[in-house]
Amino acid sequence: MRTSLLAASVALAFAALSNAGTIAAAPRETRIPAAAIAEAAQLRETALASDLGYRITQSLTTEVGARMAGSEADARAVAWARAKFQELGFDKVWVEPVTFPKWQRRSESAQVLGPNAQALTLTALGGSPGGTVEGEVVRFADLASLEAAAAGSLAGKIAYIDTTMERARDGSGYGPGSRVRSRGPSAAIRAGASAYLMRSAGTDSHRNPHTGITRFDDGLVPVPSAALSAPDAEQLTRLLKLGPQHVRVALDCGWDGTATSHNVIGEITGSGAARSRKEVVLIGGHLDSWDLGTGAIDDGAGVGLTMAAAALIGQMPKAPARTIRVVAFANEEQGLYGGKAYALQHGKDVTRHQLAAESDFGAGRIYAYSSSAPPHAQAADRQIAEALAPLGIAYAPGTGGPGPDISPFAAQGLAWARLAQDGTDYFDLHHTPDDTFDKIDPQALAQNVAAYAVFAYLAASAEGDFGSAAKPVTPPAE
Amino acid sequence: MRTSLLAASVALAFAALSNAGTIAAAPRETRIPAAAIAEAAQLRETALASDLGYRITQSLTTEVGARMAGSEADARAVAWARAKFQELGFDKVWVEPVTFPKWQRRSESAQVLGPNAQALTLTALGGSPGGTVEGEVVRFADLASLEAAAAGSLAGKIAYIDTTMERARDGSGYGPGSRVRSRGPSAAIRAGASAYLMRSAGTDSHRNPHTGITRFDDGLVPVPSAALSAPDAEQLTRLLKLGPQHVRVALDCGWDGTATSHNVIGEITGSGAARSRKEVVLIGGHLDSWDLGTGAIDDGAGVGLTMAAAALIGQMPKAPARTIRVVAFANEEQGLYGGKAYALQHGKDVTRHQLAAESDFGAGRIYAYSSSAPPHAQAADRQIAEALAPLGIAYAPGTGGPGPDISPFAAQGLAWARLAQDGTDYFDLHHTPDDTFDKIDPQALAQNVAAYAVFAYLAASAEGDFGSAAKPVTPPAE
Repeated sequence: MRTSLLAASVALAFAALSNAGTIAAAPRETRIPAAAIAEAAQLRETALASDLGYRITQSLTTEVGARMAGSEADARAVAWARAKFQELGFDKVWVEPVTFPKWQRRSESAQVLGPNAQALTLTALGGSPGGTVEGEVVRFADLASLEAAAAGSLAGKIAYIDTTMERARDGSGYGPGSRVRSRGPSAAIRAGASAYLMRSAGTDSHRNPHTGITRFDDGLVPVPSAALSAPDAEQLTRLLKLGPQHVRVALDCGWDGTATSHNVIGEITGSGAARSRKEVVLIGGHLDSWDLGTGAIDDGAGVGLTMAAAALIGQMPKAPARTIRVVAFANEEQGLYGGKAYALQHGKDVTRHQLAAESDFGAGRIYAYSSSAPPHAQAADRQIAEALAPLGIAYAPGTGGPGPDISPFAAQGLAWARLAQDGTDYFDLHHTPDDTFDKIDPQALAQNVAAYAVFAYLAASAEGDFGSAAKPVTPPAE
Repeated sequence: MRTSLLAASVALAFAALSNAGTIAAAPRETRIPAAAIAEAAQLRETALASDLGYRITQSLTTEVGARMAGSEADARAVAWARAKFQELGFDKVWVEPVTFPKWQRRSESAQVLGPNAQALTLTALGGSPGGTVEGEVVRFADLASLEAAAAGSLAGKIAYIDTTMERARDGSGYGPGSRVRSRGPSAAIRAGASAYLMRSAGTDSHRNPHTGITRFDDGLVPVPSAALSAPDAEQLTRLLKLGPQHVRVALDCGWDGTATSHNVIGEITGSGAARSRKEVVLIGGHLDSWDLGTGAIDDGAGVGLTMAAAALIGQMPKAPARTIRVVAFANEEQGLYGGKAYALQHGKDVTRHQLAAESDFGAGRIYAYSSSAPPHAQAADRQIAEALAPLGIAYAPGTGGPGPDISPFAAQGLAWARLAQDGTDYFDLHHTPDDTFDKIDPQALAQNVAAYAVFAYLAASAEGDFGSAAKPVTPPAE
């Protein structure tokens, strides 16, 4: 999962459209037939009693394991997804290529040198160059402090940002946390530093560092950049209170050409007339993971639960009018490459996308529902919320934004929904070696499957639309 | 901490002596003067309000970090302990050499090969030889199953024991758990296996494997032996349900000559007459740690809290009659070398050792007190228990045994006490990279310091003995 400024901007843009009522001719109000509501209630109970989502997630994380974009395992994950869609009885299964720069991690280590010599546990940030650097560590309490450092003031030194990320159900601590990761390296280079360290953007206290993509501003020469586990960051901070500390950081990693992976797509064909069958409700997650764990909560669960939700709809006596499309997106972690490729490939069909929701925030229970529904679809949106309420899900209109992989398409006018997962513990595991299958609660996952199944079934059964329309939104200035 | 058959045997031997009443002439009953009880109550409150034990533990684990026996950091730990005793105002400080075989860990990795290729996180068991082995994994549900395997039946294969250790306040799950570690490798070799894997002897679910010493029975050729983290063990077990799995285990580690470290000893001199000043109450912990973490709960806390308890006694207006001796034992982890050396060096002085207690079970609150007190000392023992009761400590006569490093001396007749720590979470961290200072609760540690201070002060103030006497106990047959 990657927080996107784009997503927040899209949400604001939709809110502005809705509030201002700028849509010239009011469309007919969208409604969901009573028969579909009744079917969804049954589907909900069926999904709650099913372990299908859990089994699919187990299959991916066990049989493939870690699957970093562009790796051999990533290719196996694509083959796995095709085969799994087919095994689950999806009507159509295909792949779409996604090409991106390939980054590799080979080894990484760090040592405090001198009288307090000891190893530090860290992990390279995605996109970091390799290199071995020795230097005195200069600690900064936060990103702003490093950004305020004078140019050249850290020449020959290692910049270290020691910010603790806040725990929150909605993951709101990750915005500031991930900015330390994305902007810290460039700030360090501007100040002249020869390497960059940060306390992991995470909420745990275990010896497992959190990786994640970083980037370097144009014109800067990248330096080795890594995240310390929380205990190691605290150790380094204690050591710095004793006096100056010299550290050796040795990273063997870096960019190496390009790779091509694939968005893998499966469909349960709609039962409506030809026109409605060509319309889709899109759900999904991302197929790639970081290399350290087996990508269970990020995002094996998202793939597993959306595959299961659609498969359970496929097992109903009659499919909903519209098609349910599940997308297992390629390379989310390193820059939303799969989401961008999908938007590029399907941009002309935005109005055929009834509504879209991505699951990419773990496997915790869903506690809130919201969408970008414009006024004419808000009654139908409320009908969906009412069908989700027995699952302990509150209606929270006006909150959230699209999932990461659908945000590029949402920027082009795609209507989105958000089934907000409880992320209280998500950043204990996110992007660490500890993101493994044993961390998933099967009951919570079944609740997710039930919610996505109900959501997708009702959106696909609605009479009328949820506002998808080709409306270029000006890309936000960053 | 290392469970010792010896310790259990000593406890039984003492119980037998007590029950049978085989001591010929009944000694005078030991009693603790009322004035000492009153002083101890004040000492208890002072210790509870002090963060001294926490600061000492922080100093060791931060400034030295991991300190595996025989390493460069181990030597720094010895220097640290000498300096710390002096800084804390101990009256006498000295070291006693301890020599042992030196084991080193350089690198370790494992991969599942073939269609489910992925990395497994493991750590070599202490004492394992290095080597790279590829083979099919054969899973056993427990040690008995592997021990029952026919000789040669695992030729060319990797034996894997998949036993889950039980969580318990008193650590009782570690007996079976550590036997899988100590006996599994020899059982694997007898069955012809070329390597040995086990699920870590631990109670956590994090990606941190648990190391610990193993041994190989005489006449066997050692094979690479390692422990998987709990998530990796579960992963391997799931993979084996899919079909045969080949794994490559690559360990670079092994024995390399001998090393000499030191027991470091500090004393707060008693205030009694010459004879009583020469008598000591011994408390302590072990100075060495495994190399993966910084040895905070195992056993930085034991060193820190016993140093602090004695230092607080040293700050009282008047010392107790007997001397308080704190021993920071060398190389507990690889075979109680420091404890054995101490017993050898001080064996002739067993009757001068009034009572001894080692802290080596983490930093959790102490919940029970017991000792080896014979009948004539049981009233005094109860007086100690009553002074500990306000700390939430129950009197539990007849339970437990001596700490690991005092067990060799206890086998020669040393009277011991046990201040039982709550070990519910101990085996989440024990012998893992995650054994770091941030895991210690300062309030719980202060309670430990208070308990050890009260215990040592009262034992040192008693009129009469607690049963230490030169009584050779037949070494238990194993």
